[in-house]
Amino acid sequence: MHETTIATRTGFQGKLLHVEILEIALADGARATREIIRHPGAAVVLGQLDDGRFVLVRQYRKAVEREMLEAVAGTLNRGEDPVICAHRELSEESGYRARELIPLGSVVPAPGYTDERLHLFYARLHEAQGALHTDADEHVCVVYLTAEEIERDIAAGTIDDAKTLAVWLRYRLWQAQARRNEV
Amino acid sequence: MHETTIATRTGFQGKLLHVEILEIALADGARATREIIRHPGAAVVLGQLDDGRFVLVRQYRKAVEREMLEAVAGTLNRGEDPVICAHRELSEESGYRARELIPLGSVVPAPGYTDERLHLFYARLHEAQGALHTDADEHVCVVYLTAEEIERDIAAGTIDDAKTLAVWLRYRLWQAQARRNEV
Repeated sequence: MHETTIATRTGFQGKLLHVEILEIALADGARATREIIRHPGAAVVLGQLDDGRFVLVRQYRKAVEREMLEAVAGTLNRGEDPVICAHRELSEESGYRARELIPLGSVVPAPGYTDERLHLFYARLHEAQGALHTDADEHVCVVYLTAEEIERDIAAGTIDDAKTLAVWLRYRLWQAQARRNEV
Repeated sequence: MHETTIATRTGFQGKLLHVEILEIALADGARATREIIRHPGAAVVLGQLDDGRFVLVRQYRKAVEREMLEAVAGTLNRGEDPVICAHRELSEESGYRARELIPLGSVVPAPGYTDERLHLFYARLHEAQGALHTDADEHVCVVYLTAEEIERDIAAGTIDDAKTLAVWLRYRLWQAQARRNEV
């Protein structure tokens, strides 16, 4: 299966969003169009303190008109290494710094209409919390949760951000693998 | 925390994507803009056969220029009940019908720029597979995986679609809860 691009044009160029309209040929020769959001990608960081608690953030999400509880995350600068972005966003949104940053692969949040890739990380945090440095138009609260509280909130739907579920699941599978390797 | 909408205009109106540009006032009175994709939402179905295997689909995703392995999913018609959409997409993309459809809540794939909500379901499937009825510009292959294979593929990154990780995690937590209730 493959879809060949015949023509590309810009549908919308905003400050954040860039929509491309593609004319394509399907494998059987039929024509179709695809509307795709071009996105530089993002880093997602599940940070944990030595006492076992995880550091999440709560922020108002205009798109859904309510606050959401999420892992720390932020958009990559064009061409930026996801590791650099992960360190920066962790510091800016939570005030914490990572002692160790472990990559947990990546996921695509909405492959039907965007090329955005979310680079997932688990971070062991330094205890000391510095000042938050969020963007001027961004208001973020730090929230501390145990593993049990996170799973309770995911099951109950209080945590309903897909990237947070994705990084949590990858973290749990990575942990299970590490335990099997120890035995 | 709240962000008040001052003005709204259409940035782009495509066949699939609708981009709105919002002028907003933050809690501290400062002004900002938000670019938001308005989306009718979608249904995601994790189907399972009586022999224990799960039914996923493989399809070419133009946005990322490769095939992806995903749970069955499809966009809601405007105002449609997610349950109706789940049954339709399951039949169209996999050829299977649900004996029982269990809601697993919902998630937001990209709260930074879309109001899309993914309604998650687990389905016990009838054994008999009918014909697939995908859209003319959509080519889908059915793939059968055990629970162990799904977790292996998620851990390895072979499954990297965020909604598929989300429905899998909610399914596993729902299963764990059901087991605890039995004890």
